[in-house]
Amino acid sequence: MPDQSTIAVDAMGGDEGLAVMLAGVAKARGADEGMRFILVGDESRIADGLRKHPNLSAGAEVVHAPEVIGGSDKPSQAIRRAKTTSMGIAIDLVKKGRAGAAVSAGNTGALMAMAKISLRMLPGIDRPALAAPLPTLGANDVIMLDLGANAEVDARNLVQFAVMGAAYARTNFDLESPRVGLLNIGSEEQKGTGEIREAAQVLRSATLPLTFTGFVEGDKLARGDHDVIVCDGFAGNIALKTAEGTARFVADLLRRAFTSSIRSKLGFLISRPATELLREHLDPNNHNGAVFLGLNGIVVKSHGGASASGVATAIGNAAKMVRADLTRRIADDLGNVAQTMIRPAA
Amino acid sequence: MPDQSTIAVDAMGGDEGLAVMLAGVAKARGADEGMRFILVGDESRIADGLRKHPNLSAGAEVVHAPEVIGGSDKPSQAIRRAKTTSMGIAIDLVKKGRAGAAVSAGNTGALMAMAKISLRMLPGIDRPALAAPLPTLGANDVIMLDLGANAEVDARNLVQFAVMGAAYARTNFDLESPRVGLLNIGSEEQKGTGEIREAAQVLRSATLPLTFTGFVEGDKLARGDHDVIVCDGFAGNIALKTAEGTARFVADLLRRAFTSSIRSKLGFLISRPATELLREHLDPNNHNGAVFLGLNGIVVKSHGGASASGVATAIGNAAKMVRADLTRRIADDLGNVAQTMIRPAA
Repeated sequence: MPDQSTIAVDAMGGDEGLAVMLAGVAKARGADEGMRFILVGDESRIADGLRKHPNLSAGAEVVHAPEVIGGSDKPSQAIRRAKTTSMGIAIDLVKKGRAGAAVSAGNTGALMAMAKISLRMLPGIDRPALAAPLPTLGANDVIMLDLGANAEVDARNLVQFAVMGAAYARTNFDLESPRVGLLNIGSEEQKGTGEIREAAQVLRSATLPLTFTGFVEGDKLARGDHDVIVCDGFAGNIALKTAEGTARFVADLLRRAFTSSIRSKLGFLISRPATELLREHLDPNNHNGAVFLGLNGIVVKSHGGASASGVATAIGNAAKMVRADLTRRIADDLGNVAQTMIRPAA
Repeated sequence: MPDQSTIAVDAMGGDEGLAVMLAGVAKARGADEGMRFILVGDESRIADGLRKHPNLSAGAEVVHAPEVIGGSDKPSQAIRRAKTTSMGIAIDLVKKGRAGAAVSAGNTGALMAMAKISLRMLPGIDRPALAAPLPTLGANDVIMLDLGANAEVDARNLVQFAVMGAAYARTNFDLESPRVGLLNIGSEEQKGTGEIREAAQVLRSATLPLTFTGFVEGDKLARGDHDVIVCDGFAGNIALKTAEGTARFVADLLRRAFTSSIRSKLGFLISRPATELLREHLDPNNHNGAVFLGLNGIVVKSHGGASASGVATAIGNAAKMVRADLTRRIADDLGNVAQTMIRPAA
């Protein structure tokens, strides 16, 4: 039984460095005093950084790691340094049951490769998928996966992603039978690649703890019509980043529009409280923390460029998954559907 | 030599029907009295509709087509009705040199299949690609292709798309050596699918009338760092639609924010002229008109749901391509690089 109240944090990963990671952990601890942390990384630098965050000392233990995985290190190189790097040691703490989840803002490919080797896959799952909740116009976020762990997939992978994503949505949103759609370039049955059409056929005919809602096009992701959207890691990564980039693009244009005249500046100042709320709603730091589903343990990827507040969001999400016993719930769902998934599509 | 001042319009295609198509043609003609049109479709319904647009009668000829391609007709069925449908006849007018371009708002798959069979591919091109200019923060739009004509491609297709896109950008933006990037899920050389890595290798080493700028991620499409972005039709369609959907999503949230209090409503009213400009900049009707590159003739796809103003934009773009002699310029570029493209990647 893992220590459910403890999160192992790779304190060295990410583009923003140790200071931001520690500030994020302190923020998460400030929001929930029951959380405990194991901070993995350069012992003396962490001790130094902790002086700024007295609220952490009671709830944090430091585990030394002499090395760090770099942003451009290949996964195949990274896995050879699992025992000496902050990322590898943080994952190992989950494996040993000393932490309920590991959180890292480091190299995604390395994180997945290490987690896969150390924690192994759940029975019935061939590959992990990176999943995250994205904002919608509806009551709930939508869980989207895979967001980049697997550039190429087959129909079987897509069906497994659907079941894992549905389990995540059931846990996260307290739903009976989450609405699961497949990302595609059209809504008609004959659209898309062979893999997608085959996966749709299985999802349509199988008895699963989800409601298959068919194909979803890219312009309908945020409408709130689905609880889960499934795709290969290439399309998911393109969609996620295009959405981020477009939101920033519109915000930039809006800023230009509002500063284009004295009149518009005045209007902006008056409506500022409302636009501030919007800014917060769209801030990627408030939606940070993607999880590798399908592993025998919880590993959360924080965005490399996340702020302290983004890191705190990712940690909060990790804690929520641990408390909800997400891994066991996915395993249970998989146990119930394994037969269907293994059956080749007609 | 095609009649460069005449555009053949499939008057029956599109979700919005004949009235919107005719209003769009009238609008385009209003903006440029030199344009002439052949309106293809149900003769008596068109004659009826034309009464509303007296400015068109002098510049438009009607060609009767007894049938229409439906939105859910399969391309394989559509091509058998090339001689009797408004879409097929409009394309045939380009083939016969009676029009410089065909414009249709109908079924994309059918349009591509018919255009490919009727007009045939340019020498050196295996498959057409759907290309369109998208708004950026920079001085120029960015040409993106393929936007959905080919769900699956190989490296050779991607290289051909790059050369065609560059020719389009040179024509459209008057550039010497357009900056061409490949859409990918990371900027490092080892990222993405085998096809993308192989295409990158060819583009890096070949001498082409373009500047290869490497991999572009989804969040950087609108930054204005590239003149052309190349991808397979699946990723392109997902990116395009996700960008459209996200822009609409942000606009919806903004509307909610502005109407959330009396104060914010007031601010909105004051800054309205500025936000109106923004709305116009983002309106998809102002960026309408994707072209099938690689064909022996110009065929432009207008968005199925475009307004009259969107149809007019698509027609204006088609006229611009005809005047710039886009087909010949692409053919010339292809003639110069055919050797490189046929050479398999090392």
